[in-house]
Amino acid sequence: MIDNPFYTSEFHGDYDIVSIGRLDLEDGGSIPDCRLAVTTWGELNEAKDNAILITTWYSGTHQIWRDVYVGSNHALNPERYFIVAINQIGNGLSVAPHNADGRNAELAMSNFPKVHIGDDVVAQERLLREHFGIELLQLVVGGSMGAQQTYEWAVRFPDKVLRAAPIAGTAQNTPHDFLYTEALSEQIRSDPGWAGGEYESNADVVDGLTRHAHIWAVMGFSTEFWKQEVWRALDFDSKEAFLQGFLEPYFTVMDPNDLLSMAWKWQHGDVSRHTGGDLPAALRRITARTFVMPIDEDMFFPVRDCRAEQEQIAGSELRVIEDVLGHLGLFGVAPTYMPQIDRNLGELLATEV
Amino acid sequence: MIDNPFYTSEFHGDYDIVSIGRLDLEDGGSIPDCRLAVTTWGELNEAKDNAILITTWYSGTHQIWRDVYVGSNHALNPERYFIVAINQIGNGLSVAPHNADGRNAELAMSNFPKVHIGDDVVAQERLLREHFGIELLQLVVGGSMGAQQTYEWAVRFPDKVLRAAPIAGTAQNTPHDFLYTEALSEQIRSDPGWAGGEYESNADVVDGLTRHAHIWAVMGFSTEFWKQEVWRALDFDSKEAFLQGFLEPYFTVMDPNDLLSMAWKWQHGDVSRHTGGDLPAALRRITARTFVMPIDEDMFFPVRDCRAEQEQIAGSELRVIEDVLGHLGLFGVAPTYMPQIDRNLGELLATEV
Repeated sequence: MIDNPFYTSEFHGDYDIVSIGRLDLEDGGSIPDCRLAVTTWGELNEAKDNAILITTWYSGTHQIWRDVYVGSNHALNPERYFIVAINQIGNGLSVAPHNADGRNAELAMSNFPKVHIGDDVVAQERLLREHFGIELLQLVVGGSMGAQQTYEWAVRFPDKVLRAAPIAGTAQNTPHDFLYTEALSEQIRSDPGWAGGEYESNADVVDGLTRHAHIWAVMGFSTEFWKQEVWRALDFDSKEAFLQGFLEPYFTVMDPNDLLSMAWKWQHGDVSRHTGGDLPAALRRITARTFVMPIDEDMFFPVRDCRAEQEQIAGSELRVIEDVLGHLGLFGVAPTYMPQIDRNLGELLATEV
Repeated sequence: MIDNPFYTSEFHGDYDIVSIGRLDLEDGGSIPDCRLAVTTWGELNEAKDNAILITTWYSGTHQIWRDVYVGSNHALNPERYFIVAINQIGNGLSVAPHNADGRNAELAMSNFPKVHIGDDVVAQERLLREHFGIELLQLVVGGSMGAQQTYEWAVRFPDKVLRAAPIAGTAQNTPHDFLYTEALSEQIRSDPGWAGGEYESNADVVDGLTRHAHIWAVMGFSTEFWKQEVWRALDFDSKEAFLQGFLEPYFTVMDPNDLLSMAWKWQHGDVSRHTGGDLPAALRRITARTFVMPIDEDMFFPVRDCRAEQEQIAGSELRVIEDVLGHLGLFGVAPTYMPQIDRNLGELLATEV
């Protein structure tokens, strides 16, 4: 257990911690006290059928959704929907290596078990059902690892998901993404300060976290983002200042083991685990109306990978988001980003199912 | 001075070491005894006007050109041309941090000076003129950093370069490439065994060199290379076996400081150094008939960056090479690669100038 002030309401606004009790894990073992950080907007109607689930991405929390995606001026409109964001296991607000204490004390730090995307979705389903009484979702939406969870929901619980919007992510992690994520993880593990996961403070691993940020710089944005110096729009004077003022501090405040836990989960995301490795068979289980929404300049979830999956989902559509930021367009920095998201999600939500 | 058996004829076939004497460097300082490793094929004619220059890429030497690109069955045909490959400074066959001894002893290891692409081209021009009496080149051709040298030749010595074929590289390094190369360099520098450049053996830096190979895995090949498992054609059973059996040993035998020297040079490659930062003005100096040859799946020298430069070169043509391997298609592994190179270089060489 490490006391890291980043994982507090000061940085992430209001949220609740809801325990779903013991969660048995796909790869064995369990989390005795599976505490999930949850944020909601709007009100659940009496029929409990106006809910939308938001899933979170690598290093992300509900807060970016609050800041950028959710509001009465957006498709994710709390005046119409009851919107629930559940932080993924390992993200540091929900149960994670750095905060495992109490009944989870044996899972602290390097002892945290391997968690799959499917474990998250099982936990989320239980939380929605037991805590809110929600058995049906108008929409599941998430970006990147959130897209992995979205696909997992649609494959695992097809009767509960009316619509699905995986943004900038895949149903089955690609080998290239595996290698990319491994390179990210290596930056952390190779820092002597990481100490096999038994550091005393994330500050001990600042070198590894900084290198990890630099790999994100290479892959998280597009080549054209750098060429056009789009960071100037964010009030930086040089790419180095942008790295030092934005990307490095973004990651160095985080917990290294938490990032490693999510990275492993990302690497192993694969809905074909339900079908003995048969991806088309898994995707055929999807009955949700699905808009697959890759970002055109994404370096590691390229459009063609997303299209290849989309083409195997009945009644789905490919809705490419144009954004020179590439994958990290997900931050919603470009003024042209959210209008595209809202237009597509709005259209999806308006679709009769 | 480190004795590294990789940098010998055992691994690189026959080559000569030619000293051009003292080379004063763009950024100040000098190399007292600038020894360049040179290989030639064919015979220089009496008029000394049938020469082709090959430049080398990051981590590469003349040997890949001998193995793949040069031969009587190729456009680079020694029966028609006198072909000279000059290894770049820092590559370990030519003068480099690990082999600086004798009159260069003060430049050994961490004391090696910063070398620019322009320094290489000045050294190459002098070597060709003083050693071979060559004042005119039918073609300058190189891939990646070799393309940087090719552009530098065409801008710096327009009267000496009749034709130019920069493959998979740019005249002005992009900011994204800078960050990519920085990430590569960080892998080496972050290894405690590197010891500020004063290690005793490249084996001391095997962890850093291995991580460096892993970054190449993410960027050197295309996403589709990994998805299609193209490595199976190279007789590997898994991507991990491919990494361990090919990409890791490719780099771990090399000298860390030599790689860092080349990486810095790559980062700072920019023909607009001749024109006060005005890239179009620099490219307007080119009079060579130029085929710009990006590889369609290249992750870090994308076609659009190469096209943007090509469009500013009078009489040039864009000839895109299709290769799912991406940047490392340069190794010529795909059976469809060399036919494209030969067709384009053959056509270029057949062009009257």
